Amino acid sequence: MTIAIIPVPGVPMVTEGMPLAEVVGDALAAARVGLKDGDVVAVCQKVVSKAEGALAVLAEVEPSAFADTLAAQGEMARDARVLEVVLRESARIVRNDRGHLITETHHGYVCANAGVDQSNGVAEGVLTLLPRDPDRSAEELRRDLADRFGSAIGVVVTDTFGRPWREGLVDVAIGCAGLPPLIDHGGTLDLGGRELRHTVMAFADQIATAAGLVMEKGAGIAVAIVRGARWTPAPPGAGGAKRLVRGAEFDLFR
Amino acid sequence: MTIAIIPVPGVPMVTEGMPLAEVVGDALAAARVGLKDGDVVAVCQKVVSKAEGALAVLAEVEPSAFADTLAAQGEMARDARVLEVVLRESARIVRNDRGHLITETHHGYVCANAGVDQSNGVAEGVLTLLPRDPDRSAEELRRDLADRFGSAIGVVVTDTFGRPWREGLVDVAIGCAGLPPLIDHGGTLDLGGRELRHTVMAFADQIATAAGLVMEKGAGIAVAIVRGARWTPAPPGAGGAKRLVRGAEFDLFR
Repeated sequence: MTIAIIPVPGVPMVTEGMPLAEVVGDALAAARVGLKDGDVVAVCQKVVSKAEGALAVLAEVEPSAFADTLAAQGEMARDARVLEVVLRESARIVRNDRGHLITETHHGYVCANAGVDQSNGVAEGVLTLLPRDPDRSAEELRRDLADRFGSAIGVVVTDTFGRPWREGLVDVAIGCAGLPPLIDHGGTLDLGGRELRHTVMAFADQIATAAGLVMEKGAGIAVAIVRGARWTPAPPGAGGAKRLVRGAEFDLFR
Repeated sequence: MTIAIIPVPGVPMVTEGMPLAEVVGDALAAARVGLKDGDVVAVCQKVVSKAEGALAVLAEVEPSAFADTLAAQGEMARDARVLEVVLRESARIVRNDRGHLITETHHGYVCANAGVDQSNGVAEGVLTLLPRDPDRSAEELRRDLADRFGSAIGVVVTDTFGRPWREGLVDVAIGCAGLPPLIDHGGTLDLGGRELRHTVMAFADQIATAAGLVMEKGAGIAVAIVRGARWTPAPPGAGGAKRLVRGAEFDLFR
């Protein structure tokens, strides 16, 4: 079955406190896209963070000594308050080199600057953070949009991450609801062994990356629908994008 | 613009020496999908490898001492000949633990077992390898399909890889032609600094991952078309998926 990746135009600049499900639902209705059973709504992280007020006001940030130290490194001085915000969002520093900070967030995601970013539509001196609980954000959107359109849908909250070993960025899922984050396509015998090796695809990431093809930077598309993908609704409590975080003890690539 | 990910059924079991462009072209024609300007043809690695005879016959493999050593590790014995094939395909061992081998291939790709795999449609005791030069494989397919259908198209050769830090597999590009492997969406000022940070998306990987949504294991779909993505043809010599390999010296995640 052909899958359609449908950009949803007409989502206004989102600000703190805006009812995101209503805003997205209105854009879907206005674009005559609607929602059908099996659709996945992909929403970029920044609009979720703005609506939820996951923001940091630089003028209110007092840098720690370590943030001051980091700020003086690299080829050009950086704002110690920005680095303080990044540190507060981080559970672990993965790499700290050449003025760049790759950290693991409190959710377990490994990305540049703990996902802290500047963004259009927030005031100068205000940074966007990752949502506190992106799986809950996705679930709230899913529930409200499913109610409004009467459809069994999934929601994925996407962000644009770099990757080890490979150049370029792709969008991945940092939150999801309604759909299975992982889909097991069954086992095959391991190479030369007797071990059953399962092909488990990162379905929520596949959706996020596909949606990213129409959610280009600068194109102003913050929402997309992926229609026609094959999946069965995940029961409540099946786990969100948190399940995409691989524990260090299972990570053969580390 | 909506993007369509179109599965192409009817590609027969590919064997060594089969003219892949003709086989894929016939399937496209039979499915009445054809090819239009801007289409990207995604082809899974295994059919490319089989057509090109990128195979290893286990009975002809003499394991080295190190392959024998590896074979005795892990919880269950593995076939030393399989491990010898993996070692021959590898430039570097990234991780060797619990009976698993993560290696860097001679192309520079980091993946399990250097991409060596068992596969349907090859005889018992025969393994598929990654194509010698997947960018050249992609370029040959692109040229022949572009000639036949009179369209400016791209081709991506896909494989299913695991990733550090994240659970589950996604399809990535190991070869591409006609399209830019990376697309620069322009610069924004770096966080708190004055450095222009470019948003460079791994376009060929985005296409591969999106196509993977219809190229499920077991579904028997080895070819898909991604129609409607926004890209401009890459000039010859613009570089293929090799450009997606990040040099260790630039890899902040390592």
